[in-house]
Amino acid sequence: MTRTIVASATREIVIGFDQPFCVIGERINPTGRKKLAAEMVEGNFDTVRKDAIEQVQAGATMLDVNAGVTAVDPNATEPALLVQTLEIVQGLVDVPLSIDSSVTAAIEAGLKVARGRPLVNSVTGEEEKLEAILPLVKKYDVPVVAISNDETGISMDPDVRFAVAKKIVERAMDHGIKPEDVVVDPLVMPIGALGDAGRQVFQLLYRLRNELKVNTTCGLSNISFGLPHRHGINAAFIPMVIGAGMTSAIMNPCRPQEMEAVRGANVLNGTDRDCMTWIKTYKDYKPGEHAAPAPVAVNAPGEASTGGRRRGGREARMARG
Amino acid sequence: MTRTIVASATREIVIGFDQPFCVIGERINPTGRKKLAAEMVEGNFDTVRKDAIEQVQAGATMLDVNAGVTAVDPNATEPALLVQTLEIVQGLVDVPLSIDSSVTAAIEAGLKVARGRPLVNSVTGEEEKLEAILPLVKKYDVPVVAISNDETGISMDPDVRFAVAKKIVERAMDHGIKPEDVVVDPLVMPIGALGDAGRQVFQLLYRLRNELKVNTTCGLSNISFGLPHRHGINAAFIPMVIGAGMTSAIMNPCRPQEMEAVRGANVLNGTDRDCMTWIKTYKDYKPGEHAAPAPVAVNAPGEASTGGRRRGGREARMARG
Repeated sequence: MTRTIVASATREIVIGFDQPFCVIGERINPTGRKKLAAEMVEGNFDTVRKDAIEQVQAGATMLDVNAGVTAVDPNATEPALLVQTLEIVQGLVDVPLSIDSSVTAAIEAGLKVARGRPLVNSVTGEEEKLEAILPLVKKYDVPVVAISNDETGISMDPDVRFAVAKKIVERAMDHGIKPEDVVVDPLVMPIGALGDAGRQVFQLLYRLRNELKVNTTCGLSNISFGLPHRHGINAAFIPMVIGAGMTSAIMNPCRPQEMEAVRGANVLNGTDRDCMTWIKTYKDYKPGEHAAPAPVAVNAPGEASTGGRRRGGREARMARG
Repeated sequence: MTRTIVASATREIVIGFDQPFCVIGERINPTGRKKLAAEMVEGNFDTVRKDAIEQVQAGATMLDVNAGVTAVDPNATEPALLVQTLEIVQGLVDVPLSIDSSVTAAIEAGLKVARGRPLVNSVTGEEEKLEAILPLVKKYDVPVVAISNDETGISMDPDVRFAVAKKIVERAMDHGIKPEDVVVDPLVMPIGALGDAGRQVFQLLYRLRNELKVNTTCGLSNISFGLPHRHGINAAFIPMVIGAGMTSAIMNPCRPQEMEAVRGANVLNGTDRDCMTWIKTYKDYKPGEHAAPAPVAVNAPGEASTGGRRRGGREARMARG
């Protein structure tokens, strides 16, 4: 059984076919959020802090952290900003993090400070990316998101996207990285523009699960881009991808309709044992209401600055390697 | 491609893998509705009329009609009551009907009066049932729901349920009935009692679609029996069964959350061409609101009493046979 292990300083999470769906909170990302970008450039992390706590309260399993503020020279500025953002987030909440950047130096800087076992987001099938990111993934012994596009762009042919994913998994193995540490993103297109987008993903997930036997993720809300009532489309898409074998998604956990779909699909997929999470979350549910937030794993300030007990941390593993 | 054709007097519907999910409205059923049963016994069909119109307005593709008022001698009383109920419903709305009874004489009486091409609900794998119902299904050239239990009850082993379904399909063929006119109900158990209930159904649907190549249906809300916030579980189950290949369900179309899941899954499954139904239904959607009812195919009173133009009706087909 494929098991991708991610961890914060004190908490280990398994991504796998027999595990509850892993919700990777997408909010801490200034790309396309001008106000957040401006705040982060000014050194104001109030929104970052709020988004970190709210996403974990809403049920995020992990948090994606991106500091791409589109500076003039991201190679010069993004590493320090990503480090600062990661440190603030892991000081506040105790969930594993995903280090999200298109700047290799920022990923490496992030890997140096992130506690536990973070996820690297991402590598693609492009030669330059493969040779920049995979050595870091090996060096720090962490899992990586593999996006199934390459120099030629994103293929509209799912067989080509599968072949790109396969190439990345094989190249990772050449670098000594296990396939279970490659989490493939089959790329989700907007269904409003491409009527086949849903079925393409379901077929790809089937092959990724049964042939490559890898865990998977996606930028979930792409599917509903351009359509009215996007939450309704997202909430139908989630059970379908979970049923087809997807094991995680980068999404907004602060949307109750989407999180309800995740929890319902976990029940039906047999990963919410005895329906305990469902019953706990919805036992007092009244129509029209949203579920009460779950208890949140927020670090006390003291705990945050001193760092928690490391479990399965990178340093320990690197010492073994 | 498997195509099960059902029809009202004037409207033909195809149930199939490449068709929008067929929603069979479950409301006109006095089983477990004491008040409705009492009304129907008294000859009061106000609730029946209201339920017929509301379900079609809410988006039902077909309506199930049951008149099982649990009389002392159902064999004596149910045929006439079912005929009366069917005539009232088909006089009011123009969707295909499902003739639902455990009394063979009531099914036959219903078949004599139902216009178009109704669905018979149901036969099981029990010898007595098979030999009572299948000759009627052949004689009237209609499709039938095949429930995958037999004399030994409902097996907890999905392979046994598949074997029962296969037996019914084969027996139907012995009677000259095409497999495409057998709509298999794989039987949905409550997930709260049987943690495996979801995965059992998904696996069964996969085999029913790929090995027996039949259309499928189920009593959908069974899945959430006993759990809090049942609509949430139902709304996650719908996209999962549609993704797994289910093509219809007997369910309550007056529940907006469930119907939204059906419409969303149709978009993602590629059966809502250009997302037209989704866009039409939700283009003015505001959070917290429910979608406006769709325009309803309600017969004018005159039209109802004189009967519409028959298309693909039973008499025409029987003349051919």
